[in-house]
Amino acid sequence: MTDQDYFKLAVAAAHQGLDTWTNPQVGAVIVKDGQVIATGYHHQFGQAHAEVDALSQLDDVADAKDSTVYVTLEPCSHYGKTPPCAKRLAEVGVARVVIGQQDPNPLVSGKGIQLLEDHGVAVTVLNQTADLNEAYTYFYQHHQPYFTLKYAMSLDGKINGAGMTRTQLTSEPAQQDVQQLRSRQHAILIGEHTLLNDDPQLTVRTRQQAFPPIRIALVRDANQLDRRLKLFNNAAPTWFLSETEVTTSVPENVKVVVRPEWTPVVISQYLAEQGLQAVLVEGGSQVQAAFLAADLVNELVVYVAPKVLGGAGLPAAVGEPLTAAFNLGAPTITQFGHDVRVRARRV
Amino acid sequence: MTDQDYFKLAVAAAHQGLDTWTNPQVGAVIVKDGQVIATGYHHQFGQAHAEVDALSQLDDVADAKDSTVYVTLEPCSHYGKTPPCAKRLAEVGVARVVIGQQDPNPLVSGKGIQLLEDHGVAVTVLNQTADLNEAYTYFYQHHQPYFTLKYAMSLDGKINGAGMTRTQLTSEPAQQDVQQLRSRQHAILIGEHTLLNDDPQLTVRTRQQAFPPIRIALVRDANQLDRRLKLFNNAAPTWFLSETEVTTSVPENVKVVVRPEWTPVVISQYLAEQGLQAVLVEGGSQVQAAFLAADLVNELVVYVAPKVLGGAGLPAAVGEPLTAAFNLGAPTITQFGHDVRVRARRV
Repeated sequence: MTDQDYFKLAVAAAHQGLDTWTNPQVGAVIVKDGQVIATGYHHQFGQAHAEVDALSQLDDVADAKDSTVYVTLEPCSHYGKTPPCAKRLAEVGVARVVIGQQDPNPLVSGKGIQLLEDHGVAVTVLNQTADLNEAYTYFYQHHQPYFTLKYAMSLDGKINGAGMTRTQLTSEPAQQDVQQLRSRQHAILIGEHTLLNDDPQLTVRTRQQAFPPIRIALVRDANQLDRRLKLFNNAAPTWFLSETEVTTSVPENVKVVVRPEWTPVVISQYLAEQGLQAVLVEGGSQVQAAFLAADLVNELVVYVAPKVLGGAGLPAAVGEPLTAAFNLGAPTITQFGHDVRVRARRV
Repeated sequence: MTDQDYFKLAVAAAHQGLDTWTNPQVGAVIVKDGQVIATGYHHQFGQAHAEVDALSQLDDVADAKDSTVYVTLEPCSHYGKTPPCAKRLAEVGVARVVIGQQDPNPLVSGKGIQLLEDHGVAVTVLNQTADLNEAYTYFYQHHQPYFTLKYAMSLDGKINGAGMTRTQLTSEPAQQDVQQLRSRQHAILIGEHTLLNDDPQLTVRTRQQAFPPIRIALVRDANQLDRRLKLFNNAAPTWFLSETEVTTSVPENVKVVVRPEWTPVVISQYLAEQGLQAVLVEGGSQVQAAFLAADLVNELVVYVAPKVLGGAGLPAAVGEPLTAAFNLGAPTITQFGHDVRVRARRV
């Protein structure tokens, strides 16, 4: 087996970490004398890192001496919630570390590699884990969240029927896919129209998550919110970005943040300050147009349903015009039942 | 080989007839002693029918005696541009005729079968050529053209960019597919906005056709048309459906038809009177909405391009509301380069 083969095992392990929240997904494989002797991954935010998890799989940690460790992300060099992994790998006598990607987080970037090399450990960086932790990488490179704009539209480009009635456009397989998409986010954001018209729950219903996405709604005045709205119905974390100071008390899971105006740029700055890296925009037509106009959409996920809502339906993304051409890369086209999903990244 | 196997050969032959215009595509296979001894099809409007074409492939027409003829559509029984095929089959002593579909044209429907049986020819009707001649069948069953609504839209549901600028949304493979789609139509219809903004040619550029689709544009006043428009630039048949009496002279290939108001229903009635069975609606947003609202769209062919035109772009199908739910059957989803085509029929 080559470095690439072992590395793929580490990537597969990384994908098993479904509750890493704002930590990256990381996998590690320990190889000695051509044999994989341990595999580990970062299971959950606050728990052991992948390298330590792999070491803990060994009956005797001394077995790691002179091994090669394949790890998808640069081992950390700082004391955070856990002691530094690079130091630990050096201590147990690992001969070589093959790294998928240098950590984009400035706290550790390059320092883990330095520490390993200072302790005589050979290091190879493959530079090839772009898919893994896309939002994490983007966040540390650009200091703003990775925004995914998601909506379903009819074959005639509408997101809602006439009269703003909530319209279920997609079939069950597409709805299941949306649950998957939501489960990988740090927050789900909607506008006031969607909040009041659709009264959505915005939860992930397919899997119990240790860190469910924060439900964020833009509102003019949080004081006037009807407490029977579904967002108040369960204890998932919920933020209202209000343009009016709140004077009423709110439940414990609810936070109200006030700014004079919540433009997409202000929203992006605030969510970045809060450390949220992956945000799904599920707002309606105006919110869609506003985020596109602000050039803040990193990826579009659009479900096209074989339905017709007609000339009085609400078209997608109507409102603020683009200020510059919006270029998308090659799309991924996938069928879900009778619906088709088009995913494309901004380039 | 079974009846089904031979019948498939007849269907394949039928598809070769690319210039049948308002005649149906028909294929015929003559089988004797388990051998296919001749295959024919209707090549072009005004030329021999499929059965006669097949007979003409025989060295000696006497070979057809006691044969079985597989023909996709009921043989005709009337003298039209050619003598009746059912009579000819009986005359040459065919023992049995296997027919895909009874002719929906009331001029012949059932009469060809009757004529064959009256002459002692055994007849089997398979009732299974729905795909072939869909528009032809629909036209004779409903006395109106089969309308296909076609447009390309961006991933945010727009058909044009801001300011009504013409926007080329799709890539070359999708454009090639549009040429195919056009080549199967009797007419291509646009509204005045599309005529003036896009100045389209509306021709089939991939193949020289004996009967190219008639180019039809809806206009308020045909007198005011700029003669530099591309529709005036070549000799393909062109109709203007005008709401104002025309007082100026027009080129020979151009016809102006006047009605006080050209609603979709009036258009449908007029085109049916003219014997046009397959009409492609390539109009803009208002024309799209109007045809959908009039419940006159039999099929949608929508190309979704991975582009974003933003909040000020022109959404698809904006205008007249639906008066009833518009139900589509299972779609066919096909990728053309980076674009995806969704085809669905009204049910």
